[in-house]
Amino acid sequence: MVPRSRRWREADARVKVRPVILCGGSGTRLWPLSSDEVPKQLLSIAGSDSLLQATVKRASGPLFDAPVIVTRETYAEAIARQLAEIGAGPEAMVLEPGPRNTAPAIGAAAFHELATHGDGTLLVMPSDHLIVDEGAFSNAVKASLSAAASGEIVTFGIPPRHPETGFGYIEAGDARQGDQLRKVVRFTEKPDRATAESYVRDGRHLWNGGIFLFRASTMVRELRDHAPLVAAACEAAVAGAAHEGRLVRLERARFLASPSISIDYAVLEKSNRVSVVEARMDWSDVGTWEALWEVGPKDPDGNVVSGKAAIRGCRDCLIRNETDAPVAVVDSAGLIVVVTHSGTLVVPRRSAQNAKVVQEALSRRASPEN
Amino acid sequence: MVPRSRRWREADARVKVRPVILCGGSGTRLWPLSSDEVPKQLLSIAGSDSLLQATVKRASGPLFDAPVIVTRETYAEAIARQLAEIGAGPEAMVLEPGPRNTAPAIGAAAFHELATHGDGTLLVMPSDHLIVDEGAFSNAVKASLSAAASGEIVTFGIPPRHPETGFGYIEAGDARQGDQLRKVVRFTEKPDRATAESYVRDGRHLWNGGIFLFRASTMVRELRDHAPLVAAACEAAVAGAAHEGRLVRLERARFLASPSISIDYAVLEKSNRVSVVEARMDWSDVGTWEALWEVGPKDPDGNVVSGKAAIRGCRDCLIRNETDAPVAVVDSAGLIVVVTHSGTLVVPRRSAQNAKVVQEALSRRASPEN
Repeated sequence: MVPRSRRWREADARVKVRPVILCGGSGTRLWPLSSDEVPKQLLSIAGSDSLLQATVKRASGPLFDAPVIVTRETYAEAIARQLAEIGAGPEAMVLEPGPRNTAPAIGAAAFHELATHGDGTLLVMPSDHLIVDEGAFSNAVKASLSAAASGEIVTFGIPPRHPETGFGYIEAGDARQGDQLRKVVRFTEKPDRATAESYVRDGRHLWNGGIFLFRASTMVRELRDHAPLVAAACEAAVAGAAHEGRLVRLERARFLASPSISIDYAVLEKSNRVSVVEARMDWSDVGTWEALWEVGPKDPDGNVVSGKAAIRGCRDCLIRNETDAPVAVVDSAGLIVVVTHSGTLVVPRRSAQNAKVVQEALSRRASPEN
Repeated sequence: MVPRSRRWREADARVKVRPVILCGGSGTRLWPLSSDEVPKQLLSIAGSDSLLQATVKRASGPLFDAPVIVTRETYAEAIARQLAEIGAGPEAMVLEPGPRNTAPAIGAAAFHELATHGDGTLLVMPSDHLIVDEGAFSNAVKASLSAAASGEIVTFGIPPRHPETGFGYIEAGDARQGDQLRKVVRFTEKPDRATAESYVRDGRHLWNGGIFLFRASTMVRELRDHAPLVAAACEAAVAGAAHEGRLVRLERARFLASPSISIDYAVLEKSNRVSVVEARMDWSDVGTWEALWEVGPKDPDGNVVSGKAAIRGCRDCLIRNETDAPVAVVDSAGLIVVVTHSGTLVVPRRSAQNAKVVQEALSRRASPEN
C-alpha cells in the first residue's frame, strides 16, 4: 500500500474530492422506524451518529471539499441540524422539487459543480448505508483518482460475503497487474439464489455499493450521450435554480420534466467508461431488518437490543424500542420487535427479509378497531 | 326451573340482595394492559363495558339493591365515572386505607351494612371476572336465598370445563334430591394437572368463582368465630369511618391492624356453614393472556384482534393495541402482542400462562438504553 499511497500523493496532491451525498430517499421498508417524515438516513442505526452523519464524517479530512447534499425540501431543516451537530457545513444543499431517482439527482449535482466551482471531482454516496472500515473506503477513493481524472466513472465494489439476493452486483473484467481498478463487464440487479451463490464463488462479482467517483464533466458527457432528456432537464433546472444561502432550489418544472431513472440504468449500464475499484470494507445497505440484526451488537444469546427493553428466554432477536415505555419480549427466537411512536412491528426475521409483507399487511389494515 | 322460580317468588319476594363488589385489586399480571394505575376491573376486556360495569349491570334489576363498592381511594374517581356512564349509583363506596386481602374487605362491608341498613343479604362479587350467561347467574342467586336466610354462606361453583391448574376448586358433598345447593366438603387451591383432571372427571368439584351470598350477621358471626382479629378490626374501622357523601373512609389505623388474609382462609375453609350452589355459567377470571384469548372473538384463523392492527399470516394470536399508532404482526402463531401507552408485551401464549416470567423480565430490566 505504501507505494500506491505515495503515487497518489505525487500525482493528485492538489485534487480535492467533492462528496455528493444523496439524501432524498424516503424509506418505508424499515417501518415503523423509518417513514416519509423520518427517513432511514436521518436515524441512528448503529452507534450514536445518524447514517447521514456517519457518511459526512467518512468523507471529510484533507482529501475532501465540503459536501453537496442532494435532498428534498422537507428534510432540509433536519439535515442542517444534524450537520451542525457534528460541526459540518455543506457547500450546498441542492433541493429536488420532486423525486426523480438517482440519475437526475447526480446530474443536477454535476451541473451545479460546473456552474459554481468548475470541473471538480465528485464522489457520489448514498446517505443511508453503513460502512465500518473507513480505511478501506479512503484507500478506494485514493486508488480511483487517476482513473476519474482521465474521464472514467469509477464504481465502488464490495467483495460479497454471502449470496445476498437483495443487492446489485458488478461483474469486473480481468485485473491488470498492479492495478486496483478493473473495467466493468456488466451490472446485475437482485439475482436469484443460485446465481448469487455462483457470484460469490467466481471472484469476479462485487456488491454494488452505489458509490461513484468521477469528474463533473465526465458525468455531463455520459448523461448527454446516454440520457439526453435527463441531461437537458438537469442543466435547465440548475440554470434556473433559486439560491438562498446554501440552499439551491432546482427549477421545478424543468427538473420534473426529467424521466425518473436510476444512474445505473441511465448511464452505468450503457457507458464504456465505467471501472470498478475493489473496496474491501464492511458495508451494508441496512435496507432490511435482517441487515440491522446482522450489523448490530449482540448479547451472548445473539439478541440485538436497543432502548428500554426487558427480555427473557430470547435468542437471535432484534428488539428496538424508540419510546419511553418499556418493551418486554419473552421466550422468542429470531423475532423482530420494533416499537416507535409511529407504530409497532412484530415479525420473524425469516419473514422480515421480504419487506413487502409488512407493507401489504399495513395497507390491508381492515381489522376491527375498538 | 319454573317451580323453583315460583318458590323463590313466594318465599323471598321481599328480600333484596345487596351486591358487594370487590374493586380494590391491582392487577399487574396483565401488564401492560393493567397496572396499579388502571387495574383490570376498569378495563374493557370483552365488549365495550369494563369488567366492573358488566359486574354492576349483572347485579341489577328488581332482585337487587344499589351496590356497595369496596375499593381504594385512588380508584374511587374512575369508578364513580364508570358507574355514571352506565347510570348506576352505588349505595356506598367503602374505601380501604390499604390492601388487606378479601376477608377484611368483606368484613367491613358486612359491618357497614349492619350499621347503615340492618341485617341485609349480601352478594360478594369480584369486579374483574367475566361472566357470559347472566341467566344462570341470576338463577344461582335465587336458588341460594333461602339457605342464606337461614345462616349459610353460599359459594358459587362453576362446573369445570377443563383441568385448569390456576383456579381454586370447591368439593361439593352429596346432593339432596331437588336441591341445587350442596354442603362444601373442602376448598383446594391450584391443584396439579393430574389432580385437576380427576376433579373434572369426578363431578364433585367446581371452580371457585369467588362469589358468595350470605346475611351480614352470618359473616360477622363467622368472622368472630374464626378470625376474631379481622372481625375486631373491621368493626372498629367501620365505627370510626369518615363519611363524605357516598364515600366511606374506613378508620385507617384500625383497618390496617387487621391481618391480611383471604376470606377463603379466614372463614370458608373453617366454617361448617358453607354451601355451594352450582352456577352453570360461562365464567372466566380473565387472569391470564391465555384466558383473554379464550374468551375473545376470533377471526377464521383463530386470532383475537382489537385496536389498530394489521396482521398477515398469523394464527391463534392475541393482538391488542390500545394506542393510535398501528401494530403490524406478520407470520406469527400463538403469539400475544399487547401495545399500550404503558408498554409493549410480546410473548408466546404457551409462556404467557406463567405471568411471572414477564414480571421477572421487567424487574431485571438491565438492558442497554440508548
